[in-house]
Amino acid sequence: MMSKLPEGKGRKAVVLLSGGLDSMVVAGLVREAGYSLCALTINYNQRHVIELEAAKRIAAHLGAERHVILPLDLRQFGGSALTDDIAVPKDGVQPGVPVTYVPARNLVFLSLTLAWAEAVGAHDICIGVNALDYSGYPDCRPEFIEGFRNLARLATKAGDAGEDFAIHAPLQFLSKADIAREAHRLGLDSAMSWSCYDPQPDPSGEGWLACGQCDSCRLRLGGFAEAGLTDRAGYV
Amino acid sequence: MMSKLPEGKGRKAVVLLSGGLDSMVVAGLVREAGYSLCALTINYNQRHVIELEAAKRIAAHLGAERHVILPLDLRQFGGSALTDDIAVPKDGVQPGVPVTYVPARNLVFLSLTLAWAEAVGAHDICIGVNALDYSGYPDCRPEFIEGFRNLARLATKAGDAGEDFAIHAPLQFLSKADIAREAHRLGLDSAMSWSCYDPQPDPSGEGWLACGQCDSCRLRLGGFAEAGLTDRAGYV
Repeated sequence: MMSKLPEGKGRKAVVLLSGGLDSMVVAGLVREAGYSLCALTINYNQRHVIELEAAKRIAAHLGAERHVILPLDLRQFGGSALTDDIAVPKDGVQPGVPVTYVPARNLVFLSLTLAWAEAVGAHDICIGVNALDYSGYPDCRPEFIEGFRNLARLATKAGDAGEDFAIHAPLQFLSKADIAREAHRLGLDSAMSWSCYDPQPDPSGEGWLACGQCDSCRLRLGGFAEAGLTDRAGYV
Repeated sequence: MMSKLPEGKGRKAVVLLSGGLDSMVVAGLVREAGYSLCALTINYNQRHVIELEAAKRIAAHLGAERHVILPLDLRQFGGSALTDDIAVPKDGVQPGVPVTYVPARNLVFLSLTLAWAEAVGAHDICIGVNALDYSGYPDCRPEFIEGFRNLARLATKAGDAGEDFAIHAPLQFLSKADIAREAHRLGLDSAMSWSCYDPQPDPSGEGWLACGQCDSCRLRLGGFAEAGLTDRAGYV
Protein backbone atom coordinates (compact mmCIF):
# COMPACT_ATOMS: atom_id res chain seq x y z
CA MET A 1 0.00 0.00 0.00
CA MET A 2 1.27 3.45 -0.91
CA SER A 3 -1.18 5.54 1.04
CA LYS A 4 1.31 7.43 3.24
CA LEU A 5 1.72 11.11 2.53
CA PRO A 6 5.03 12.98 2.69
CA GLU A 7 5.91 14.61 6.02
CA GLY A 8 3.70 17.67 6.47
CA LYS A 9 4.74 19.31 9.73
CA GLY A 10 4.44 23.10 9.52
CA ARG A 11 2.49 22.89 6.25
CA LYS A 12 -1.18 23.30 5.44
CA ALA A 13 -3.01 20.78 3.29
CA VAL A 14 -6.37 21.49 1.69
CA VAL A 15 -8.51 18.35 1.67
CA LEU A 16 -11.70 17.77 -0.26
CA LEU A 17 -13.86 16.28 2.47
CA SER A 18 -17.19 14.94 1.23
CA GLY A 19 -17.89 13.09 4.46
CA GLY A 20 -17.59 9.66 2.82
CA LEU A 21 -15.31 6.85 3.93
CA ASP A 22 -12.62 7.66 1.35
CA SER A 23 -12.27 11.35 2.15
CA MET A 24 -12.33 10.55 5.89
CA VAL A 25 -9.32 8.28 5.40
CA VAL A 26 -7.54 10.94 3.34
CA ALA A 27 -8.12 13.54 6.05
CA GLY A 28 -6.83 11.03 8.62
CA LEU A 29 -3.68 10.43 6.55
CA VAL A 30 -3.17 14.18 6.29
CA ARG A 31 -3.26 14.56 10.07
CA GLU A 32 -1.06 11.50 10.53
CA ALA A 33 1.56 13.11 8.27
CA GLY A 34 1.50 16.20 10.48
CA TYR A 35 -0.18 18.70 8.16
CA SER A 36 -2.53 21.35 9.43
CA LEU A 37 -5.90 20.35 7.95
CA CYS A 38 -7.98 22.80 5.89
CA ALA A 39 -11.10 20.85 4.97
CA LEU A 40 -13.35 21.87 2.09
CA THR A 41 -16.84 20.44 1.80
CA ILE A 42 -19.15 21.40 -1.06
CA ASN A 43 -22.86 21.60 -0.42
CA TYR A 44 -23.89 21.01 -4.04
CA ASN A 45 -27.53 20.43 -3.15
CA GLN A 46 -26.83 16.74 -3.47
CA ARG A 47 -29.50 14.14 -2.83
CA HIS A 48 -27.45 12.81 0.11
CA VAL A 49 -26.92 16.21 1.72
CA ILE A 50 -26.74 14.29 5.00
CA GLU A 51 -23.08 13.65 4.15
CA LEU A 52 -22.37 17.25 5.23
CA GLU A 53 -23.07 16.21 8.82
CA ALA A 54 -20.51 13.44 8.47
CA ALA A 55 -17.99 15.94 7.11
CA LYS A 56 -18.54 18.16 10.17
CA ARG A 57 -18.02 15.24 12.56
CA ILE A 58 -14.81 14.19 10.79
CA ALA A 59 -13.35 17.71 10.61
CA ALA A 60 -14.06 18.25 14.31
CA HIS A 61 -12.68 14.83 15.29
CA LEU A 62 -9.45 15.43 13.37
CA GLY A 63 -8.97 18.96 14.73
CA ALA A 64 -9.19 20.76 11.39
CA GLU A 65 -7.66 24.24 11.44
CA ARG A 66 -10.51 25.37 9.21
CA HIS A 67 -13.55 23.69 7.72
CA VAL A 68 -15.33 25.57 4.95
CA ILE A 69 -18.70 24.26 3.80
CA LEU A 70 -19.29 26.02 0.51
CA PRO A 71 -22.77 26.15 -1.04
CA LEU A 72 -22.71 25.56 -4.81
CA ASP A 73 -26.08 24.59 -6.23
CA LEU A 74 -25.27 22.10 -9.00
CA ARG A 75 -28.99 21.25 -9.15
CA GLN A 76 -29.24 24.36 -11.35
CA PHE A 77 -27.32 22.34 -13.97
CA GLY A 78 -28.81 18.91 -13.21
CA GLY A 79 -27.84 15.96 -15.39
CA SER A 80 -27.19 13.45 -12.60
CA ALA A 81 -29.16 11.15 -10.30
CA LEU A 82 -27.50 13.02 -7.43
CA THR A 83 -28.66 16.47 -8.54
CA ASP A 84 -31.78 15.85 -10.61
CA ASP A 85 -35.03 13.87 -10.62
CA ILE A 86 -33.36 10.66 -11.76
CA ALA A 87 -33.58 7.46 -9.69
CA VAL A 88 -30.45 6.06 -8.03
CA PRO A 89 -29.73 2.57 -9.49
CA LYS A 90 -30.01 -0.26 -6.97
CA ASP A 91 -29.28 -3.31 -9.14
CA GLY A 92 -25.58 -3.57 -8.49
CA VAL A 93 -22.49 -1.96 -10.02
CA GLN A 94 -22.73 -2.09 -13.84
CA PRO A 95 -20.06 -1.47 -16.48
CA GLY A 96 -19.84 2.07 -17.85
CA VAL A 97 -20.41 5.46 -16.29
CA PRO A 98 -23.59 5.37 -14.15
CA VAL A 99 -26.31 8.04 -13.89
CA THR A 100 -24.92 9.06 -10.50
CA TYR A 101 -22.04 10.69 -12.39
CA VAL A 102 -22.21 14.46 -11.78
CA PRO A 103 -20.94 16.39 -14.83
CA ALA A 104 -17.35 17.56 -14.29
CA ARG A 105 -17.78 17.39 -10.51
CA ASN A 106 -14.23 16.50 -9.55
CA LEU A 107 -12.84 19.15 -11.87
CA VAL A 108 -15.11 21.78 -10.31
CA PHE A 109 -14.27 20.62 -6.77
CA LEU A 110 -10.52 20.34 -7.35
CA SER A 111 -10.54 23.81 -8.92
CA LEU A 112 -12.17 25.20 -5.79
CA THR A 113 -9.65 23.36 -3.62
CA LEU A 114 -6.85 24.91 -5.67
CA ALA A 115 -8.43 28.36 -5.31
CA TRP A 116 -8.52 28.04 -1.52
CA ALA A 117 -5.03 26.53 -1.39
CA GLU A 118 -3.59 29.43 -3.36
CA ALA A 119 -5.45 31.98 -1.20
CA VAL A 120 -3.96 30.53 2.03
CA GLY A 121 -0.51 29.71 0.64
CA ALA A 122 -0.94 25.92 0.76
CA HIS A 123 0.76 23.74 -1.85
CA ASP A 124 -0.73 20.37 -0.93
CA ILE A 125 -4.15 19.39 -2.21
CA CYS A 126 -5.67 16.05 -1.27
CA ILE A 127 -8.54 14.12 -2.81
CA GLY A 128 -9.91 10.66 -2.08
CA VAL A 129 -10.35 9.42 -5.63
CA ASN A 130 -9.85 5.76 -6.16
CA ALA A 131 -9.39 3.97 -9.45
CA LEU A 132 -9.92 0.37 -8.38
CA ASP A 133 -13.23 -0.18 -6.57
CA TYR A 134 -14.97 2.82 -8.03
CA SER A 135 -18.02 3.58 -10.08
CA GLY A 136 -16.32 4.13 -13.42
CA TYR A 137 -16.32 7.92 -13.10
CA PRO A 138 -13.83 9.37 -15.61
CA ASP A 139 -12.72 12.07 -13.19
CA CYS A 140 -11.32 9.50 -10.74
CA ARG A 141 -8.57 8.26 -13.07
CA PRO A 142 -4.84 8.91 -12.68
CA GLU A 143 -4.64 10.68 -16.09
CA PHE A 144 -7.20 13.19 -14.88
CA ILE A 145 -5.34 13.87 -11.62
CA GLU A 146 -2.05 14.27 -13.49
CA GLY A 147 -3.70 16.57 -16.03
CA PHE A 148 -5.09 18.70 -13.23
CA ARG A 149 -1.66 19.04 -11.63
CA ASN A 150 -0.26 20.38 -14.89
CA LEU A 151 -3.13 22.81 -15.35
CA ALA A 152 -2.81 24.06 -11.73
CA ARG A 153 0.54 25.54 -12.70
CA LEU A 154 -0.90 27.39 -15.69
CA ALA A 155 -4.05 28.53 -13.87
CA THR A 156 -2.52 30.31 -10.89
CA LYS A 157 -0.35 33.24 -9.93
CA ALA A 158 1.61 30.92 -7.65
CA GLY A 159 2.21 28.45 -10.49
CA ASP A 160 3.26 31.33 -12.72
CA ALA A 161 5.84 32.27 -10.08
CA GLY A 162 7.32 28.76 -10.27
CA GLU A 163 5.53 27.28 -7.26
CA ASP A 164 4.13 23.80 -7.70
CA PHE A 165 0.96 22.29 -6.33
CA ALA A 166 1.08 18.66 -5.27
CA ILE A 167 -2.19 16.84 -5.90
CA HIS A 168 -2.20 13.92 -3.48
CA ALA A 169 -4.57 11.07 -4.23
CA PRO A 170 -3.31 8.56 -1.65
CA LEU A 171 -6.17 6.10 -2.21
CA GLN A 172 -5.74 6.04 -5.97
CA PHE A 173 -4.52 2.45 -6.16
CA LEU A 174 -6.11 1.00 -3.03
CA SER A 175 -9.03 -1.40 -3.02
CA LYS A 176 -12.07 -0.64 -0.86
CA ALA A 177 -10.84 -3.35 1.50
CA ASP A 178 -7.50 -1.52 1.79
CA ILE A 179 -9.36 1.71 2.53
CA ALA A 180 -11.46 0.03 5.23
CA ARG A 181 -8.21 -1.28 6.74
CA GLU A 182 -6.67 2.17 6.64
CA ALA A 183 -9.69 3.64 8.46
CA HIS A 184 -9.24 0.94 11.10
CA ARG A 185 -5.47 1.50 11.38
CA LEU A 186 -5.99 5.24 11.78
CA GLY A 187 -8.58 4.65 14.51
CA LEU A 188 -11.34 6.34 12.52
CA ASP A 189 -14.82 5.12 13.40
CA SER A 190 -16.61 4.23 10.15
CA ALA A 191 -19.88 5.46 11.71
CA MET A 192 -18.52 9.02 11.48
CA SER A 193 -18.61 8.83 7.67
CA TRP A 194 -21.52 8.68 5.21
CA SER A 195 -21.34 7.05 1.76
CA CYS A 196 -24.92 6.22 0.71
CA TYR A 197 -26.43 8.05 -2.28
CA ASP A 198 -30.01 7.37 -1.23
CA PRO A 199 -30.50 7.92 2.53
CA GLN A 200 -33.57 6.24 4.02
CA PRO A 201 -35.45 7.54 7.08
CA ASP A 202 -34.71 5.44 10.16
CA PRO A 203 -37.95 3.58 11.02
CA SER A 204 -37.28 4.44 14.68
CA GLY A 205 -38.23 7.96 13.63
CA GLU A 206 -34.87 9.63 14.15
CA GLY A 207 -32.05 10.16 11.68
CA TRP A 208 -31.16 8.34 8.50
CA LEU A 209 -29.88 4.94 7.45
CA ALA A 210 -27.82 3.89 4.43
CA CYS A 211 -29.84 2.04 1.76
CA GLY A 212 -27.32 -0.80 1.37
CA GLN A 213 -28.15 -1.19 -2.32
CA CYS A 214 -26.75 1.78 -4.25
CA ASP A 215 -23.32 1.41 -5.86
CA SER A 216 -21.68 3.40 -3.10
CA CYS A 217 -23.15 1.17 -0.35
CA ARG A 218 -22.31 -2.01 -2.27
CA LEU A 219 -18.68 -1.01 -2.80
CA ARG A 220 -18.33 0.03 0.83
CA LEU A 221 -19.96 -3.07 2.30
CA GLY A 222 -17.91 -5.27 -0.02
CA GLY A 223 -14.71 -3.59 1.12
CA PHE A 224 -15.41 -4.04 4.82
CA ALA A 225 -16.44 -7.66 4.25
CA GLU A 226 -13.29 -8.43 2.28
CA ALA A 227 -11.15 -6.79 4.98
CA GLY A 228 -12.93 -8.83 7.67
CA LEU A 229 -13.95 -5.61 9.44
CA THR A 230 -17.31 -4.36 10.66
CA ASP A 231 -18.83 -1.26 9.10
CA ARG A 232 -20.37 0.56 12.05
CA ALA A 233 -22.59 2.76 9.83
CA GLY A 234 -26.32 2.09 10.13
CA TYR A 235 -28.05 0.30 7.23
CA VAL A 236 -31.73 -0.42 6.64
CA MET B 1 -9.23 40.09 -36.49
CA MET B 2 -10.13 36.49 -35.87
CA SER B 3 -13.07 36.99 -33.59
CA LYS B 4 -15.69 35.17 -35.70
CA LEU B 5 -17.01 31.90 -34.28
CA PRO B 6 -17.84 28.86 -36.40
CA GLU B 7 -21.44 28.54 -37.61
CA GLY B 8 -23.61 27.58 -34.63
CA LYS B 9 -27.14 27.13 -35.98
CA GLY B 10 -28.96 24.36 -34.08
CA ARG B 11 -26.26 24.20 -31.42
CA LYS B 12 -26.11 25.48 -27.86
CA ALA B 13 -23.14 27.45 -26.60
CA VAL B 14 -22.45 28.02 -22.93
CA VAL B 15 -20.97 31.47 -22.38
CA LEU B 16 -19.32 32.78 -19.25
CA LEU B 17 -21.02 36.15 -18.95
CA SER B 18 -19.58 38.37 -16.25
CA GLY B 19 -21.39 41.44 -17.49
CA GLY B 20 -18.18 43.18 -18.59
CA LEU B 21 -17.46 44.57 -22.04
CA ASP B 22 -15.48 41.50 -23.13
CA SER B 23 -18.05 38.87 -22.20
CA MET B 24 -20.80 41.03 -23.73
CA VAL B 25 -18.94 40.98 -27.05
CA VAL B 26 -18.41 37.20 -26.78
CA ALA B 27 -22.13 36.66 -26.14
CA GLY B 28 -22.89 38.91 -29.13
CA LEU B 29 -20.55 36.89 -31.36
CA VAL B 30 -22.24 33.69 -30.18
CA ARG B 31 -25.64 35.01 -31.24
CA GLU B 32 -24.23 36.34 -34.50
CA ALA B 33 -22.95 32.85 -35.30
CA GLY B 34 -26.44 31.46 -34.74
CA TYR B 35 -25.94 29.51 -31.51
CA SER B 36 -28.59 29.29 -28.87
CA LEU B 37 -27.11 31.17 -25.91
CA CYS B 38 -26.83 29.59 -22.46
CA ALA B 39 -25.30 32.31 -20.28
CA LEU B 40 -23.61 31.53 -16.98
CA THR B 41 -22.90 34.31 -14.51
CA ILE B 42 -21.18 33.63 -11.20
CA ASN B 43 -22.14 35.69 -8.17
CA TYR B 44 -18.88 35.19 -6.32
CA ASN B 45 -19.64 37.88 -3.76
CA GLN B 46 -17.36 40.14 -5.75
CA ARG B 47 -16.78 43.75 -4.77
CA HIS B 48 -18.40 44.86 -8.02
CA VAL B 49 -21.50 42.68 -7.64
CA ILE B 50 -23.25 45.38 -9.67
CA GLU B 51 -21.89 43.60 -12.77
CA LEU B 52 -24.63 40.98 -12.27
CA GLU B 53 -27.19 43.59 -13.32
CA ALA B 54 -25.20 44.18 -16.49
CA ALA B 55 -25.15 40.43 -17.17
CA LYS B 56 -28.95 40.31 -16.83
CA ARG B 57 -29.39 43.22 -19.26
CA ILE B 58 -27.07 41.61 -21.80
CA ALA B 59 -28.63 38.14 -21.57
CA ALA B 60 -32.11 39.62 -21.99
CA HIS B 61 -31.04 41.85 -24.89
CA LEU B 62 -29.44 38.93 -26.73
CA GLY B 63 -32.40 36.60 -26.17
CA ALA B 64 -30.54 33.99 -24.11
CA GLU B 65 -32.26 30.61 -24.02
CA ARG B 66 -31.21 30.34 -20.40
CA HIS B 67 -29.33 32.58 -17.99
CA VAL B 68 -28.12 30.96 -14.77
CA ILE B 69 -26.76 33.24 -12.05
CA LEU B 70 -24.94 30.89 -9.73
CA PRO B 71 -24.00 31.97 -6.19
CA LEU B 72 -20.47 30.85 -5.20
CA ASP B 73 -19.08 32.76 -2.25
CA LEU B 74 -15.35 33.07 -3.02
CA ARG B 75 -15.10 35.57 -0.15
CA GLN B 76 -14.87 32.48 2.06
CA PHE B 77 -11.43 31.92 0.49
CA GLY B 78 -10.40 35.59 0.12
CA GLY B 79 -6.93 36.38 -1.17
CA SER B 80 -7.95 39.06 -3.69
CA ALA B 81 -8.87 42.74 -3.73
CA LEU B 82 -12.13 41.66 -5.37
CA THR B 83 -13.09 39.23 -2.59
CA ASP B 84 -11.29 40.46 0.51
CA ASP B 85 -10.52 43.65 2.46
CA ILE B 86 -7.74 44.71 0.12
CA ALA B 87 -7.83 48.07 -1.69
CA VAL B 88 -8.24 48.15 -5.49
CA PRO B 89 -5.13 49.80 -7.02
CA LYS B 90 -5.80 53.12 -8.78
CA ASP B 91 -2.29 54.13 -9.89
CA GLY B 92 -2.39 52.64 -13.37
CA VAL B 93 -1.66 49.22 -14.81
CA GLN B 94 1.64 47.88 -13.37
CA PRO B 95 3.78 44.93 -14.50
CA GLY B 96 3.13 41.60 -12.77
CA VAL B 97 -0.04 40.00 -11.45
CA PRO B 98 -2.10 42.61 -9.53
CA VAL B 99 -3.95 42.12 -6.21
CA THR B 100 -7.24 42.02 -8.12
CA TYR B 101 -6.24 38.52 -9.25
CA VAL B 102 -8.73 36.03 -7.79
CA PRO B 103 -7.04 32.69 -7.05
CA ALA B 104 -7.80 30.18 -9.81
CA ARG B 105 -10.96 32.06 -10.79
CA ASN B 106 -10.99 31.28 -14.50
CA LEU B 107 -10.30 27.60 -13.81
CA VAL B 108 -13.18 27.46 -11.35
CA PHE B 109 -15.50 29.33 -13.71
CA LEU B 110 -14.54 27.34 -16.82
CA SER B 111 -15.03 24.11 -14.86
CA LEU B 112 -18.55 25.21 -13.97
CA THR B 113 -19.19 26.15 -17.58
CA LEU B 114 -18.03 22.70 -18.64
CA ALA B 115 -20.28 21.08 -16.02
CA TRP B 116 -23.33 22.91 -17.35
CA ALA B 117 -22.34 22.27 -20.96
CA GLU B 118 -22.07 18.54 -20.34
CA ALA B 119 -25.38 18.48 -18.46
CA VAL B 120 -27.24 20.11 -21.39
CA GLY B 121 -25.34 18.37 -24.19
CA ALA B 122 -23.49 21.47 -25.41
CA HIS B 123 -20.00 21.16 -26.87
CA ASP B 124 -19.15 24.83 -27.28
CA ILE B 125 -17.85 26.84 -24.34
CA CYS B 126 -17.02 30.51 -24.73
CA ILE B 127 -14.98 32.83 -22.57
CA GLY B 128 -13.90 36.44 -23.05
CA VAL B 129 -10.28 36.16 -21.97
CA ASN B 130 -7.88 38.41 -23.73
CA ALA B 131 -4.11 38.15 -23.71
CA LEU B 132 -3.19 41.56 -25.11
CA ASP B 133 -4.70 44.44 -23.14
CA TYR B 134 -5.20 42.51 -19.93
CA SER B 135 -4.12 42.71 -16.33
CA GLY B 136 -1.41 40.05 -16.43
CA TYR B 137 -3.66 37.34 -15.00
CA PRO B 138 -2.08 33.92 -15.69
CA ASP B 139 -5.46 32.31 -16.35
CA CYS B 140 -6.07 34.50 -19.40
CA ARG B 141 -3.20 33.06 -21.45
CA PRO B 142 -3.56 30.79 -24.50
CA GLU B 143 -1.58 27.96 -22.78
CA PHE B 144 -4.13 27.91 -19.99
CA ILE B 145 -7.08 27.75 -22.39
CA GLU B 146 -5.41 24.98 -24.40
CA GLY B 147 -4.62 23.06 -21.19
CA PHE B 148 -8.22 23.34 -20.10
CA ARG B 149 -9.45 21.95 -23.42
CA ASN B 150 -7.28 18.89 -22.96
CA LEU B 151 -8.42 18.37 -19.38
CA ALA B 152 -12.09 18.74 -20.34
CA ARG B 153 -11.76 15.51 -22.29
CA LEU B 154 -10.33 13.64 -19.29
CA ALA B 155 -12.73 15.18 -16.77
CA THR B 156 -16.05 14.25 -18.33
CA LYS B 157 -18.21 11.32 -19.33
CA ALA B 158 -18.75 12.97 -22.71
CA GLY B 159 -15.01 13.34 -23.24
CA ASP B 160 -14.52 9.73 -22.21
CA ALA B 161 -17.02 8.76 -24.90
CA GLY B 162 -14.92 10.55 -27.53
CA GLU B 163 -16.85 13.81 -27.64
CA ASP B 164 -14.77 16.96 -27.72
CA PHE B 165 -15.43 20.32 -26.11
CA ALA B 166 -14.40 23.40 -28.05
CA ILE B 167 -13.22 26.22 -25.79
CA HIS B 168 -13.73 29.39 -27.79
CA ALA B 169 -11.81 32.46 -26.68
CA PRO B 170 -12.58 34.73 -29.63
CA LEU B 171 -11.06 37.85 -28.03
CA GLN B 172 -7.81 36.13 -27.14
CA PHE B 173 -5.67 38.10 -29.57
CA LEU B 174 -7.70 41.30 -29.88
CA SER B 175 -6.72 44.64 -28.38
CA LYS B 176 -9.20 46.53 -26.22
CA ALA B 177 -9.67 48.89 -29.15
CA ASP B 178 -10.57 45.90 -31.35
CA ILE B 179 -13.06 44.75 -28.70
CA ALA B 180 -14.66 48.20 -28.51
CA ARG B 181 -14.95 48.12 -32.33
CA GLU B 182 -16.55 44.67 -32.19
CA ALA B 183 -19.12 45.89 -29.66
CA HIS B 184 -19.92 48.76 -32.03
CA ARG B 185 -20.10 46.49 -35.10
CA LEU B 186 -22.46 44.11 -33.27
CA GLY B 187 -24.68 47.03 -32.23
CA LEU B 188 -24.13 46.38 -28.54
CA ASP B 189 -24.54 49.46 -26.37
CA SER B 190 -21.47 49.74 -24.11
CA ALA B 191 -23.71 51.16 -21.38
CA MET B 192 -25.27 47.69 -21.01
CA SER B 193 -21.95 46.31 -19.72
CA TRP B 194 -20.06 46.95 -16.48
CA SER B 195 -16.27 46.67 -16.13
CA CYS B 196 -15.26 48.74 -13.07
CA TYR B 197 -13.81 46.92 -10.03
CA ASP B 198 -14.65 49.71 -7.62
CA PRO B 199 -18.15 51.10 -8.26
CA GLN B 200 -18.83 54.57 -6.83
CA PRO B 201 -22.28 55.81 -5.76
CA ASP B 202 -23.70 58.26 -8.27
CA PRO B 203 -23.75 61.69 -6.55
CA SER B 204 -27.24 62.19 -8.02
CA GLY B 205 -28.30 59.62 -5.42
CA GLU B 206 -29.29 56.83 -7.80
CA GLY B 207 -27.24 53.96 -9.14
CA TRP B 208 -23.51 53.59 -9.55
CA LEU B 209 -20.72 55.01 -11.65
CA ALA B 210 -17.43 53.48 -12.81
CA CYS B 211 -14.40 54.85 -10.94
CA GLY B 212 -12.36 55.48 -14.10
CA GLN B 213 -9.09 54.73 -12.29
CA CYS B 214 -8.89 50.98 -11.63
CA ASP B 215 -7.01 48.81 -14.15
CA SER B 216 -10.27 47.60 -15.66
CA CYS B 217 -11.56 51.15 -16.25
CA ARG B 218 -8.19 52.32 -17.60
CA LEU B 219 -7.94 49.45 -20.10
CA ARG B 220 -11.52 49.98 -21.21
CA LEU B 221 -11.29 53.76 -21.58
CA GLY B 222 -7.99 53.37 -23.43
CA GLY B 223 -9.56 50.91 -25.84
CA PHE B 224 -12.53 53.14 -26.69
CA ALA B 225 -10.23 56.16 -27.08
CA GLU B 226 -7.89 54.28 -29.41
CA ALA B 227 -10.84 53.05 -31.47
CA GLY B 228 -12.21 56.59 -31.69
CA LEU B 229 -15.47 55.43 -30.14
CA THR B 230 -17.46 56.75 -27.18
CA ASP B 231 -17.91 54.59 -24.11
CA ARG B 232 -21.50 55.22 -23.06
CA ALA B 233 -20.95 53.82 -19.53
CA GLY B 234 -21.19 56.39 -16.72
CA TYR B 235 -17.95 57.46 -15.02
CA VAL B 236 -17.38 59.66 -11.96
